[in-house]
Amino acid sequence: MKSSQIRVGIAGLGIAGTEFIANVEKHPNMTVSAAATRDPKRREQFEKDFNANAYETIEAMCASDSIDLIYIATPTELHKEHVFIAAENKKHIIVEKPIATSIEEASSMIEICQKNNVHMLVGHSHSFELPIIEMKKIIDSGQIGDVRMINNLYYNDWIYRPRTPEELDTSLGGGVTFRQGSHQFDIIRFLGGGNVRSVRASTGRWDLKRNTEGSHSVWLEFENGVTATAIYNGYDHFHTTELTFGLGEGGPVKSNQPYGNSRKQIENTLSLRMKSNKKIVVAINQFPPNGIIQLIILFSV
Amino acid sequence: MKSSQIRVGIAGLGIAGTEFIANVEKHPNMTVSAAATRDPKRREQFEKDFNANAYETIEAMCASDSIDLIYIATPTELHKEHVFIAAENKKHIIVEKPIATSIEEASSMIEICQKNNVHMLVGHSHSFELPIIEMKKIIDSGQIGDVRMINNLYYNDWIYRPRTPEELDTSLGGGVTFRQGSHQFDIIRFLGGGNVRSVRASTGRWDLKRNTEGSHSVWLEFENGVTATAIYNGYDHFHTTELTFGLGEGGPVKSNQPYGNSRKQIENTLSLRMKSNKKIVVAINQFPPNGIIQLIILFSV
Repeated sequence: MKSSQIRVGIAGLGIAGTEFIANVEKHPNMTVSAAATRDPKRREQFEKDFNANAYETIEAMCASDSIDLIYIATPTELHKEHVFIAAENKKHIIVEKPIATSIEEASSMIEICQKNNVHMLVGHSHSFELPIIEMKKIIDSGQIGDVRMINNLYYNDWIYRPRTPEELDTSLGGGVTFRQGSHQFDIIRFLGGGNVRSVRASTGRWDLKRNTEGSHSVWLEFENGVTATAIYNGYDHFHTTELTFGLGEGGPVKSNQPYGNSRKQIENTLSLRMKSNKKIVVAINQFPPNGIIQLIILFSV
Repeated sequence: MKSSQIRVGIAGLGIAGTEFIANVEKHPNMTVSAAATRDPKRREQFEKDFNANAYETIEAMCASDSIDLIYIATPTELHKEHVFIAAENKKHIIVEKPIATSIEEASSMIEICQKNNVHMLVGHSHSFELPIIEMKKIIDSGQIGDVRMINNLYYNDWIYRPRTPEELDTSLGGGVTFRQGSHQFDIIRFLGGGNVRSVRASTGRWDLKRNTEGSHSVWLEFENGVTATAIYNGYDHFHTTELTFGLGEGGPVKSNQPYGNSRKQIENTLSLRMKSNKKIVVAINQFPPNGIIQLIILFSV
């Protein structure tokens, strides 16, 4: 290990944590040096794969001097606790979005980092992705003039796709505003130029069977005078990509799955779940137009 | 004339007034019975065409008992004065949009009508047009559920099309917010269901050469909880019809004029105007892609 290497400890080996490891491995100045998870099998596997220590608790990982930075990929409701542990152990921090579910929690997390002189970054952030960086470059070049107005409109079926219980519980950081809004507002701020001076917004809970925020309508005014609207409707069976010539965030839409089957899909899944009442729910959906069979495995709580 | 006929007096024989006459003529219960214009030639022509009185002043027309209703198609800055004359003469009123350029003016106009027990309607209103009525019918039928959110986005080149001086002077009711917003907000209110309880908005003056509101970004909350956004950008060379599969307010877009020539067109027009400095300006524009030649005649002030 070179001395310029940043040694990263992964807190939580769920989807986000596991995906992050792959990216750290690619980075020339970062090394995965530790992990913390309560699952003994995962600890064993991690130590074998990475020749690095795996700890049972985040406290133990942060107390050691094997890491410089902690990546907090634990559930949203644990972010504050884990940021405090890391900061008080003088570890720099990347914490998964959303940072927290209240301004008070988020502010206390920023304060503890400032007090302990450690950096905290909230990620993952789409602002660092190529299409967004390219948009920013074009704006900064001045070749098309100043940004005056931003209108972001996103209709999709987020709320009706198979979701984990946390994703449908606002108090645990669920719903489209915490989960998707954090990306939408981040990108708009990045392109719009900085700090917001005025906000007017509403959120919608339109289906009490999936009782979390499924939509929002937001009006933002930046300190530089730019105004932006951010609309998100996760109850929709019309996808805004239809309005953008089939081009989505990741380029042309390649999926041949007909859009708008989400509600049916989740209804099948839920009915199977109710019937089986087991730890693992398997739903098989066949989409008639193209005959694709999709296997969905849900882990129930 | 049947006794059930409403006798209409036209105040102002400009474009709006003249267009309105044709519609009154089609209505089974309305008759054009008088007009008021300062132009003696137009009065003569009107009396010949309609076998009805033409007055030099609105006062004189309203003082007579030849009309039940006055259609006020005079410039916006005269609306208040003419509404007062009509109301105090106990004539019902249709006044062209926008009603006025301030809440105070509009309120005083409503008050004088209530005091004199006459009806006042602001028009023309797109809410009475077939596509909007059809949308309202579908909503009221309940077959697709309740309205939850309305997002209206309109990009076009309103500000760069050839315009009259009044249309580019906010104090005279010009700019997209007074001229086009009155339609946009009217339709949204009609479909959204009634009164607005909260507004947050900004307007943009982005080209000081045509110094009036050319854009707005509006967030509205209705008393029934529906939230709406109304975006209008009249500086654009991208038309939102491109996002709606070529379907505009009037059905499929049929024009073969390439979109986005407005700025060039107005620049040609203005440069000709500066050179000629005459009462009538003629601009000839050729659009290279299809060879169409367009003749524009502007009456300067």
